[in-house]
Amino acid sequence: MPKRVDHRERRTLIADALMRVAAEHGLEAVSLRHVAAEAGVSSGMVQHYFRTKDEMMAFALSVVREHSEARVGQAVAALGPDPSPRTLLRTMLAELLPLDESRRADGRVALAFLAYTAVRPAVAAALHRETAELLAFIAGQIRAAQVAGTARAGVDPDRAAVALLAVMEGLGVYLLGGHYPPETALGALDTQLDLLLGPADRK
Amino acid sequence: MPKRVDHRERRTLIADALMRVAAEHGLEAVSLRHVAAEAGVSSGMVQHYFRTKDEMMAFALSVVREHSEARVGQAVAALGPDPSPRTLLRTMLAELLPLDESRRADGRVALAFLAYTAVRPAVAAALHRETAELLAFIAGQIRAAQVAGTARAGVDPDRAAVALLAVMEGLGVYLLGGHYPPETALGALDTQLDLLLGPADRK
Repeated sequence: MPKRVDHRERRTLIADALMRVAAEHGLEAVSLRHVAAEAGVSSGMVQHYFRTKDEMMAFALSVVREHSEARVGQAVAALGPDPSPRTLLRTMLAELLPLDESRRADGRVALAFLAYTAVRPAVAAALHRETAELLAFIAGQIRAAQVAGTARAGVDPDRAAVALLAVMEGLGVYLLGGHYPPETALGALDTQLDLLLGPADRK
Repeated sequence: MPKRVDHRERRTLIADALMRVAAEHGLEAVSLRHVAAEAGVSSGMVQHYFRTKDEMMAFALSVVREHSEARVGQAVAALGPDPSPRTLLRTMLAELLPLDESRRADGRVALAFLAYTAVRPAVAAALHRETAELLAFIAGQIRAAQVAGTARAGVDPDRAAVALLAVMEGLGVYLLGGHYPPETALGALDTQLDLLLGPADRK
């Protein structure tokens, strides 16, 4: 199936070019021509992947999403079978933080996307579904830890999930802004998990 | 002192115009000419407040900062003398969340500023100092609650402050993106304060 391989390669070529240009100038400032020049392809080929600013933003976010899914998938697989809810949540959320340069590049694109959708809310619809799914997954893990007796009782799992995901997102924003180093963010994430799941389960 | 009054009025005129244009198009897309046209003044007058994109971004952030300082100041003053650490923190942090349209407009500008400084880190220097001061204040309140016996013991106040501020920031990002309604964000903030300071002190 040479055609399909070709498509994946082209997509990666254009995605990488978009990420490099976005890292230098900011996603908001990137144009179709910019990306075509950086990738060394025609504007027409780039238009195959996105034509409008909205489509470029959505394409950039889909690239970032693929990166994080691959990272989280690998990190979770490395935990082996049946990790505790705390270990699973810690691994997932730490993997989503911009702790190194490649995750920072992704994080900057995600932040630019968020700033963009704050004025163009219609573009954010797909993201809403993902957030809801992620919140449901986190709440499920907190519930499982409560059943197993390792989590603080009396805490509403759905509200705690919203707070925990917000911690991750907020730490990411402060890390991208250079407000504190990775160790500070990881320390706060561990403190949050201590508060929620108790230090007993800590590894 | 007519000249000083004039300056404040002009500054407010231009700040309001910038916020309106930013609300419609996104801060990143705003130009000096845009703002001059919206304010009904010359480009020369706008240049008195900012000349470059970096300066416009800094000016926009200073406007947002003034708004939030005024809001937080009012809300805290309304608490009367000696509020508990929990009441004080809850009031401050809720006031910083984009819960209504005017705070959403400010929040969008702040998010655009953050996305911008993620690719232009030098612009963020003043913000770093503010974050450090805010974190020190929050840690002080958590420490005070621990001394008074109303906070969970054994939690590092500095790490807990980083987590609490990150919750606020993350909730703000999700609210601006329309991921959930204000009640969900406030519920998560209260859950966070319960986790940290214990439900006993809740009002």
